[in-house]
Amino acid sequence: MEKKFNFLEERILKDGIVKEGNVLRVDSFLNHQLDVELLENIGKEFHKRFKSEKITKVLTVEASGIAIACFVAQKFKVPVVFAKKSKSINLSDDVYSAEVESFTHKTKNTVVVTKKYISKNDSVLVIDDFLANGAALQGLISILNQAGATVAGIGIAIEKGFQPGGQFIRNMGYHLESLAIVDSMEVEPKKINFRK
Amino acid sequence: MEKKFNFLEERILKDGIVKEGNVLRVDSFLNHQLDVELLENIGKEFHKRFKSEKITKVLTVEASGIAIACFVAQKFKVPVVFAKKSKSINLSDDVYSAEVESFTHKTKNTVVVTKKYISKNDSVLVIDDFLANGAALQGLISILNQAGATVAGIGIAIEKGFQPGGQFIRNMGYHLESLAIVDSMEVEPKKINFRK
Repeated sequence: MEKKFNFLEERILKDGIVKEGNVLRVDSFLNHQLDVELLENIGKEFHKRFKSEKITKVLTVEASGIAIACFVAQKFKVPVVFAKKSKSINLSDDVYSAEVESFTHKTKNTVVVTKKYISKNDSVLVIDDFLANGAALQGLISILNQAGATVAGIGIAIEKGFQPGGQFIRNMGYHLESLAIVDSMEVEPKKINFRK
Repeated sequence: MEKKFNFLEERILKDGIVKEGNVLRVDSFLNHQLDVELLENIGKEFHKRFKSEKITKVLTVEASGIAIACFVAQKFKVPVVFAKKSKSINLSDDVYSAEVESFTHKTKNTVVVTKKYISKNDSVLVIDDFLANGAALQGLISILNQAGATVAGIGIAIEKGFQPGGQFIRNMGYHLESLAIVDSMEVEPKKINFRK
C-alpha cells in the first residue's frame, strides 16, 4: 500500500500551525527551532531527486534557507553559498545583485552574492524553505543568470500551491521539486490539503 | 611533534583576508560561501570539547551562526534554535528578547526567541561564528537566563582575542571554547597570530 503522506507532509500535519490569511507556521521544526534529523532527511530526499544532475554548488538565501541548504550540500559534498539580503543602494562592483519585489507585501529587497563565489562553470542547485510567490527565488535565478551559471535544479521544502510562484518557475522549464505542496488550508478545524 | 596549528587556524591562514581596522574576512569558507566539510569538522571538534556536558539544545543567532550550529547539533542529536534579529519595538508576550548594543558601532539590535523553544529544563550549548565584543552572545545568555535554562557551554569558531568579549565571558565563569583565537593581525604582509 502506498503511503498517503511523505515524511515532511506528515510533520506539517502534526506540528504546522495554520493562521488566518493562509499563513502556515512551521517554526517548531523548520524556521526557528530546527529538527536536525528532519533536515537530514530533507537533504537525503533532495539528493535522491537531483543526483542525476551535475551539482557543483548549493545556493540559498539567508536566513532560514541556510540550514536546509547545508544538509543538501552535505550529501552532494559541495559548498553552500548563501545570498545576503541587503537594503543598501551602494553595492560594490564585486557582487551580483537582484532587486526583488514581494507581490504580497510590495516591499523591495535586494539579494546579493559576491561574484567570486559563483562562476559560469557552476551548475547550481537552488534550495529554499518556502516558495509562495517566489520573489526570493527569482532573485537567486537572476543572480545565476548574471553569472552565466547553470540552474541545475530548484529544491523547495514547502510550496504554497495556491500562490503562483511554483507555476511560473515550472512554466519556464526549470526542474523544480517541492517536497510538500499545500493546495489549501483551513484554520478551524485545522486542515491542510497537499497536492497528490 | 605537536602540530603548530589546528585545522581551522590553518584554513584562516590560507584563505582568511585581513583588512584595515582589524577586519578578518572569512567569506570564502565560513560566512558567505560555506565549506561543508570544514563545518562538519567544527561540529566534531565542539562535540569532543563539550561531550561531557548534558546538552539538550544548541542556540545560535541568525544568519551566519546557523550553519555551524546545525553541524554541532547533528553530532549531539539535539535541535537547533536560532534567535532572530529584530528592529521592531512591538514584540509579543510569547518571546524572550534582549536588546544588545554593539560596543564598536553603537548600533542597537534586539535578539528574539519564542518562549516555547527554550525552557528551564534545557541545558544549552551556545554556538556562534565570531566573538569580538560579544554583544550578540550577551543577548543569547540574557535570553537563557530569562528562560531559567542552563548555559552548558559556549562554542565559538573565531575569537578576536584583542577585543574584550571572550575575557568578559570567561571572567563570569562560563565554559567558553574558541577554536581559533586571533591575538593580532597585520594587513601587509598578511600576518595572523593565534593564541597558543
